Amino acid sequence: MLKVEHIGIAVKDLSASVPLFEKLLNTNCYKKETVESEHVHTAFFQKGTTKIELLESTLEDGVIAKFIERKGEGIHHIAFEVEDIISEIERLKHEGFVLLNDQPKKGADNKLVAFLHPKTTNGVLIEICMEIKK
Amino acid sequence: MLKVEHIGIAVKDLSASVPLFEKLLNTNCYKKETVESEHVHTAFFQKGTTKIELLESTLEDGVIAKFIERKGEGIHHIAFEVEDIISEIERLKHEGFVLLNDQPKKGADNKLVAFLHPKTTNGVLIEICMEIKK
Repeated sequence: MLKVEHIGIAVKDLSASVPLFEKLLNTNCYKKETVESEHVHTAFFQKGTTKIELLESTLEDGVIAKFIERKGEGIHHIAFEVEDIISEIERLKHEGFVLLNDQPKKGADNKLVAFLHPKTTNGVLIEICMEIKK
Repeated sequence: MLKVEHIGIAVKDLSASVPLFEKLLNTNCYKKETVESEHVHTAFFQKGTTKIELLESTLEDGVIAKFIERKGEGIHHIAFEVEDIISEIERLKHEGFVLLNDQPKKGADNKLVAFLHPKTTNGVLIEICMEIKK
């Protein structure tokens, strides 16, 4: 794991949260993207080498909508950049962590991603991600 | 706000969570510190320019113990490094954010810190911090 690539924050309404985070972080949202496969609208901010990714559900019963129902708006996951996602998945499985997806899948921001089950990581939803080379 | 300085994670038992995060992050804990004023034992890991800070309560009814009672173990706060904490507090107040402490206080890791009320920040507990110059 190389660095914290981004922190994902679950919000109800991007149109309210984007200006809020622009004021908070004192920087403009530089990208919005819808990830159909994950049922989320996203908005990105950059701070140093880390991104803040706001997540709004596109479905009433999507993963993010359910998270907010259970826990309220707030931090949803931490994503770490890895050099080689395949070997990192193997390393983590070998260490006893449970992957939510064994095979990397396409995420937001041109990345291959995999998630670890929070039950094996002290309640923290961890994503590992690797940029797809063009 | 310059960068994500650290991410704070509430844990029940550092003696179990430190080895877990060493395996997860594939790096050793490089520092442990007790912050009496905040009633926490802390343990630090470095990933890129960001630290992961594990937080265990020193009191049965401390802030971290209460957080875990309410929400379970997991991500507790995001801390952003700022250049000048006094002027950043003023800027944030001017933008309508509510500070939990108006005056910076001494935190872990030789820092002056201030916290923003999560009600004004989409449910995210935000810390701003500045290193105390020696």
